[in-house]
Amino acid sequence: MSLKLYDLALADPDLRPSPFCWMVKFALLHKELEFETIPVGFADKSQYPDPEYGRVPVIVDGGETVKDSAAIAAWLDRKYPDNPLAATDGEAAAAEFYRAWVFASFFPAIAPMLVARIHALAAEEDKSYFRKSREERFGKTIEELAATTGQKEKVEASLQVLSAPLGRYRFLGGHKPNLCDYTVMGSFMWPRLSAAEDLYEAPQPVAAWMERMLDLFDGYARKAKRPS
Amino acid sequence: MSLKLYDLALADPDLRPSPFCWMVKFALLHKELEFETIPVGFADKSQYPDPEYGRVPVIVDGGETVKDSAAIAAWLDRKYPDNPLAATDGEAAAAEFYRAWVFASFFPAIAPMLVARIHALAAEEDKSYFRKSREERFGKTIEELAATTGQKEKVEASLQVLSAPLGRYRFLGGHKPNLCDYTVMGSFMWPRLSAAEDLYEAPQPVAAWMERMLDLFDGYARKAKRPS
Repeated sequence: MSLKLYDLALADPDLRPSPFCWMVKFALLHKELEFETIPVGFADKSQYPDPEYGRVPVIVDGGETVKDSAAIAAWLDRKYPDNPLAATDGEAAAAEFYRAWVFASFFPAIAPMLVARIHALAAEEDKSYFRKSREERFGKTIEELAATTGQKEKVEASLQVLSAPLGRYRFLGGHKPNLCDYTVMGSFMWPRLSAAEDLYEAPQPVAAWMERMLDLFDGYARKAKRPS
Repeated sequence: MSLKLYDLALADPDLRPSPFCWMVKFALLHKELEFETIPVGFADKSQYPDPEYGRVPVIVDGGETVKDSAAIAAWLDRKYPDNPLAATDGEAAAAEFYRAWVFASFFPAIAPMLVARIHALAAEEDKSYFRKSREERFGKTIEELAATTGQKEKVEASLQVLSAPLGRYRFLGGHKPNLCDYTVMGSFMWPRLSAAEDLYEAPQPVAAWMERMLDLFDGYARKAKRPS
């Protein structure tokens, strides 16, 4: 039985923008593990392997269920130690810092550009749940969020810090990608797969790194369906 | 001949607040290398090993002169490969990201609280150079910078991202300190050694990590002289 990843899907089940599900997809590809993705909606938690937990990513591998992208990455490195996602615990700690930076800096900048788009693309049965949960999270209506100005510039400014490691190394992991790359690129898949067009222009050398990340694993991320 | 580190000093030559000189001091201690520090002022570049470069840290080891804290760290790992500062190039890339984060997030928050203090503590012959160079850098007078409000809260907010790695690991380097720890803690020595009192309250678990960093190497950083 192959490994299963529960992955958020929009009305079109091929649209899968969830950033932390993407982090896990990159991690599974890095490990060269076969896996299938199981699309789930936002609202109906009975589709989830653990309805009470009510979030994804969750993987089911044989009889084991593992939740939360960081925990999944650590679990993959324990169970499948070849080709580690984090070769040292210093690299694992750095991935935690990148994840915290994504939440503190990139997500607040990009989220207002995405919420109305995702609402429009969500399945009918998910729309009211999505609206209610996101409006509670942000303390604004979806329409107020969508009307926020200057977000593109904020996103582009937030990305400048990535120019330091990527100006010196091909990947955040150094000469090859590691969990840090998958954490950050996973978060960049969220806007990429929530809009037909690119919503911001990454500064160099970040933009070139994004292209390299899209090319990995036979172009897996580049081939992911975008909205039309 | 022992290794020499050129280190910025204030009017009291035992006051050495330069953040990137501190990164290098931590790196030299980590390598268990004997070194002496050579105090230099801000203005008189003829004291510097490379007056035209006109910055510190610079180390002189035998006949070699190495400039810039990141370059010095990489050079130390090449010349003295035991006990690496960065065990993988993923760790070295992460240290670049922490350094960029320090410049983008911590320094803009803390600098307005420090510039007038350092000006007051600088040697008489350095004061006009220090005022001119810092007022050009910030586009404000020292007195305007000192009058900025809300910086303590900005500093404390900026430190929250460090709680993610430090909530899971004892050090940014994992179970032991690495170049990431020295980069960040070096920057925290700047406010510590520019004021008699603590200027902000780090959130936990960052505060506990700072205490661990002060304890390293027989309390080297904790023993560093603070202004009275």
